[in-house]
Amino acid sequence: MTDTRETPLISDLLRCPQGPIDVTSFDAGATPGAEAGKKGTLQDMAELGAEMSELQERLFARGRAEPATARRMLVILQGLDTAGKGGVVRHTFGLVDPQGIHLQAFKAPTPEELEHDFLWRIRRALPGPGMIGVFDRSHYEDVLAVRVNRLVEEPVWQGRFDLINRFEAELAASGTHVVKCFLNVSKEEQKKRLMARLESPAKYWKYSSSDLETRANWDQYMVAYNEVLERCNPDEAPWYVIPADHKWYRNWAVARIMLETMRSMQLSWPPADFDVAREIERVKRS
Amino acid sequence: MTDTRETPLISDLLRCPQGPIDVTSFDAGATPGAEAGKKGTLQDMAELGAEMSELQERLFARGRAEPATARRMLVILQGLDTAGKGGVVRHTFGLVDPQGIHLQAFKAPTPEELEHDFLWRIRRALPGPGMIGVFDRSHYEDVLAVRVNRLVEEPVWQGRFDLINRFEAELAASGTHVVKCFLNVSKEEQKKRLMARLESPAKYWKYSSSDLETRANWDQYMVAYNEVLERCNPDEAPWYVIPADHKWYRNWAVARIMLETMRSMQLSWPPADFDVAREIERVKRS
Repeated sequence: MTDTRETPLISDLLRCPQGPIDVTSFDAGATPGAEAGKKGTLQDMAELGAEMSELQERLFARGRAEPATARRMLVILQGLDTAGKGGVVRHTFGLVDPQGIHLQAFKAPTPEELEHDFLWRIRRALPGPGMIGVFDRSHYEDVLAVRVNRLVEEPVWQGRFDLINRFEAELAASGTHVVKCFLNVSKEEQKKRLMARLESPAKYWKYSSSDLETRANWDQYMVAYNEVLERCNPDEAPWYVIPADHKWYRNWAVARIMLETMRSMQLSWPPADFDVAREIERVKRS
Repeated sequence: MTDTRETPLISDLLRCPQGPIDVTSFDAGATPGAEAGKKGTLQDMAELGAEMSELQERLFARGRAEPATARRMLVILQGLDTAGKGGVVRHTFGLVDPQGIHLQAFKAPTPEELEHDFLWRIRRALPGPGMIGVFDRSHYEDVLAVRVNRLVEEPVWQGRFDLINRFEAELAASGTHVVKCFLNVSKEEQKKRLMARLESPAKYWKYSSSDLETRANWDQYMVAYNEVLERCNPDEAPWYVIPADHKWYRNWAVARIMLETMRSMQLSWPPADFDVAREIERVKRS
């Protein structure tokens, strides 16, 4: 599968449209753009790693050479339990040098975190120059889980959409490419995956009985996601809705979006900040 | 290459002996235990990832399930410029789930770090329960670069060997498996690699003219490494001397040592902390 002008970009196919959204109308089992089928897509996954790695290294090199101006990426992974945030980290971000990845999983806030504004812990975890930050959950939980579980009053979470938009606009303005992926798993597939966790001792640790409480609130989560996708979806910090019922498609789609985004960044190697000919002579004499 | 009783462990072959050491007498171009040659070794590297990944996931699962008692690993990578600390991170630690790796590169201390004891920043970077911490340089620079560059008086760095031993004994006692790898590159190979960085614009960013100052102090670094290897080499926090002139061998040897260490840890999946049959019924009804 080569990337030609005729091949549609996965980032176009999966870009969440503007305006009111009903995410339950999106097919979680779809595989748009994966004309090569599962086998060909897995093959493409194995191949695209090389280009992704080189682009990531260029980004990283710029971060080292020009930290004050270097760009960064921030990939936000959201999705209900079993949607595969961990799987994407392993299979998609496992394709590139671990040195260039700054991974942060956000769980229920600690007492210290709760003493601060909801964006405090997020800001502390932002990627450094040249880095790819990957958030497994994010500030969006503060308008998702927090809303569904009524952890704050409505006016508080309502006010957060604007705060999030301003925050992400600030990131974009300072050279951070924000990519937001909603891993859209169906309710039926979630049931299968929860059951699979209970059927293998190697997966018990992934199971929490609180997952069922979240599942019981499925419809409320969908309403909350709809509002997120409608209100926080500017081109400078776009949402992608990733059909996540097929793991092979999910991992590949995120990888393609990463690759397409990095291609669009026109990343080049930083120039030498020394006299190359002179240093060659010095090394020869050393 | 299968691992049988007859196959010597790489962690035995490369374990740094006790007593006075002259590391310059070690062959940096050797490939002990790699009977399969370069091709077979690269093949083994591709294959051992699966077992390494599973053992890492068990370690990680324990960390989630039993954080107060779960074990950790700490891998310390030391070596002169171009020895390949970054290459090992990419190729060896890239084999496992990035979620389970806590990577920390130590550079010259910041002003804040200098306000504290030399182990302060090290302690802050220790891996959490179930994690594999990877240090690209470490507290050993405080008896290596600091010594060679005379950044503190001799009695200060002399006192650090004991402090380091006590610190690492504390880590071991609290369930952290410490693995220390000295990537042993020869002076000739270093010259080639520095030259390669000057011959490709894709590698300029890896070059620093200060590398030549370090190179000019090669013999002093060897003396300093000899003392480290002699004085800080207990079985509970062992040094391995990795021949590093062949990148394929270096990456594989560290991977084998990781794998052998994890095998020795007898890692099993944590038991369910819930009633499995009851949860299956709950999921079915959900």
